[in-house]
Amino acid sequence: MDRLFRSRMDLDVAKKIFFEAVRPIERKESVPLEAANGRVLASDVVAELNVPHYRRAAMDGYAIHADDTLGATTSSPVVLILTDGDVSPGTCRRVHTGSAIPRGADAVVMLEDTRAIGTTVEILSQVHPGKHVGDIGEDVASGELLLPSGHLLRPGDLAVLASAGIIDVEIYHRPLVAIIPTGEEVVPRGKPLHTGEVWETNSLMTSCYVTNSGGFPRITNIVTDDPELIRQAIQDNLDADMIIVSGGTSVGERDHVPAAIEALGEVLVHGVAISPGKPTALGVVEGKPILCMPGYPVAGLVALLVFGIPVIHKLGHIPPQSPKTTLKLPLKEKITSRQGYHTYARVRIIDGSVEPLMASGAGILSSVAKADGYVVVPPNIEGYGAGTEVEVILF
Amino acid sequence: MDRLFRSRMDLDVAKKIFFEAVRPIERKESVPLEAANGRVLASDVVAELNVPHYRRAAMDGYAIHADDTLGATTSSPVVLILTDGDVSPGTCRRVHTGSAIPRGADAVVMLEDTRAIGTTVEILSQVHPGKHVGDIGEDVASGELLLPSGHLLRPGDLAVLASAGIIDVEIYHRPLVAIIPTGEEVVPRGKPLHTGEVWETNSLMTSCYVTNSGGFPRITNIVTDDPELIRQAIQDNLDADMIIVSGGTSVGERDHVPAAIEALGEVLVHGVAISPGKPTALGVVEGKPILCMPGYPVAGLVALLVFGIPVIHKLGHIPPQSPKTTLKLPLKEKITSRQGYHTYARVRIIDGSVEPLMASGAGILSSVAKADGYVVVPPNIEGYGAGTEVEVILF
Repeated sequence: MDRLFRSRMDLDVAKKIFFEAVRPIERKESVPLEAANGRVLASDVVAELNVPHYRRAAMDGYAIHADDTLGATTSSPVVLILTDGDVSPGTCRRVHTGSAIPRGADAVVMLEDTRAIGTTVEILSQVHPGKHVGDIGEDVASGELLLPSGHLLRPGDLAVLASAGIIDVEIYHRPLVAIIPTGEEVVPRGKPLHTGEVWETNSLMTSCYVTNSGGFPRITNIVTDDPELIRQAIQDNLDADMIIVSGGTSVGERDHVPAAIEALGEVLVHGVAISPGKPTALGVVEGKPILCMPGYPVAGLVALLVFGIPVIHKLGHIPPQSPKTTLKLPLKEKITSRQGYHTYARVRIIDGSVEPLMASGAGILSSVAKADGYVVVPPNIEGYGAGTEVEVILF
Repeated sequence: MDRLFRSRMDLDVAKKIFFEAVRPIERKESVPLEAANGRVLASDVVAELNVPHYRRAAMDGYAIHADDTLGATTSSPVVLILTDGDVSPGTCRRVHTGSAIPRGADAVVMLEDTRAIGTTVEILSQVHPGKHVGDIGEDVASGELLLPSGHLLRPGDLAVLASAGIIDVEIYHRPLVAIIPTGEEVVPRGKPLHTGEVWETNSLMTSCYVTNSGGFPRITNIVTDDPELIRQAIQDNLDADMIIVSGGTSVGERDHVPAAIEALGEVLVHGVAISPGKPTALGVVEGKPILCMPGYPVAGLVALLVFGIPVIHKLGHIPPQSPKTTLKLPLKEKITSRQGYHTYARVRIIDGSVEPLMASGAGILSSVAKADGYVVVPPNIEGYGAGTEVEVILF
């Protein structure tokens, strides 16, 4: 007997229901800064030291008494005597950017504003006390919050932490995402194909997106269209933080995945008003989100972009990569859309205008390789006419 | 004796001179698709097979003779007899999305437009020949160029290649980037600090940017400010595709890096009209680009963003990550800039408006951790006033 879709739920409603069911993971690990690039802090990092820990020169030049430079100009320089020790009035000492300010000095004159003549130095401009001097703790003060829990660590952040003497940071685990390819017709890559068979490619695409999104992918063997085997595969992977099942979620009689989820937990959504991607099903088993993406690769890709990546981000406390990388450009040809659906049209950018890839059907995977990105047509609009300025979200 | 800057070269001129001296690497390797995500193809990939390699159903439904459905409607269905074999006129056979079209059939009626009653099926709508049938080679035709040399492989591209039976691809090596930290005042992280000393952090930041940009970083030990040792370190790292030297490129008498490059090869640029980042020096030794970034971390960061990352991209044939991820938002407070310089102002985004981080000086590394991105003020403009809409380039 054929199971029909429960519904064609509005995209935003489906997102809300699914994302609300996702609990961010709490597992933490401690890693050296070298391993923390792109990871998310799981605890506040507080400075235990001052940076700098000494008064430092902010410029190459001479440490001096500011009072000594009163009235100094190019035409009427002040002459100071070079020293290697403390700086008493009438003397100066050579300093480099970052080096310690010698005792007695209270300012630095830039090298460009001086003229060295033997053991004396002509000062060509007046400076006020504190000029080009970095105070203790000027950059980071001991006790200061350096970065808060939940912060995504960028290279510059790591340098800041390193400068304050931090060696290890506590970060959240990367979400473990189990990927279960299903289908009678899919066979492992490299094996010879018979009529009606295709190579299994969704797990490869999905695993790369999981990695790119900050997750850790684990691909299982292909599971055939057998209700018991699918149920078992889901159960076996509940140690993961999320399960993505590819295929087995259309209206066909072999589409057992939503039924398997229902047997183990709860189907939250089955059928979403997106095109392609309508057969997408979303559920939860033992607190773990399950995304059933359509087996047809382009439809599966849309389901991944719309549901999979945001869930990985939420699981891993990863701030949304907002804004997405987008371009606003005029359409070269019209985009037709499916009324009542969010339509995801693959497009190519040529000479500054947007060309829809007309290849019909969610089965035309090659259109993805030709595409630079996609344009989303909302459900209440009948496509976009030629010349319309549209927003392209780059892949 | 102090060496002064040769010049403060205009940023665009400096870029042009330096980038023109960079030769993309030609070394290639062959890797399985699983290892090719984010890498760049070093040869065209041509399909050796048709995808699909058989006529396939594009929908779940029944394979039929299109002629049999003439005039079929919900109120006046056509009744066909279910078969398990070839489809002769008057019969139909159940097919699933992606399954082979049985011999004799020339179209598919969607499941939604049928009613199964025992061993017969009511067809509720008329279809034309070829409807919901994917022809051989519809997705990929044998002999077709799948992806050209120089293409950056995204997850969907890998799926396309996999679907056409490709197992390995030829890709360019990741550029090897040697990072040489220099300076008397910098000590390895973890060691205790004396007055005048700081921990070496630029190599950590730089190595993460190298990795993020598609390069492979190799960090050397810290080299002290000794002309001979710096020359030796550069020479020892000429097996790399690029050398980034941190520090040793200001006007101070200890700044030996440009001199070392001059002894071994050619200094192309010394002093660039960017703020911070003015002491940046650029050169070439034995065909290898050398970036001398200022030791002060924020100035070094600007030099990396402006010169380092584009060179890694050019070396690795990596298409520029254009467009950069940017936001256009109004300024909350004015940004002051340095006349005649491209000024890189770190900013924070708060409640939809852009707040410049006023922390002065290239030594204030902590401003990087507080920043969401930066605003570039061109040299011919005296800063931006409050309320101006500016473009923020996100870190």
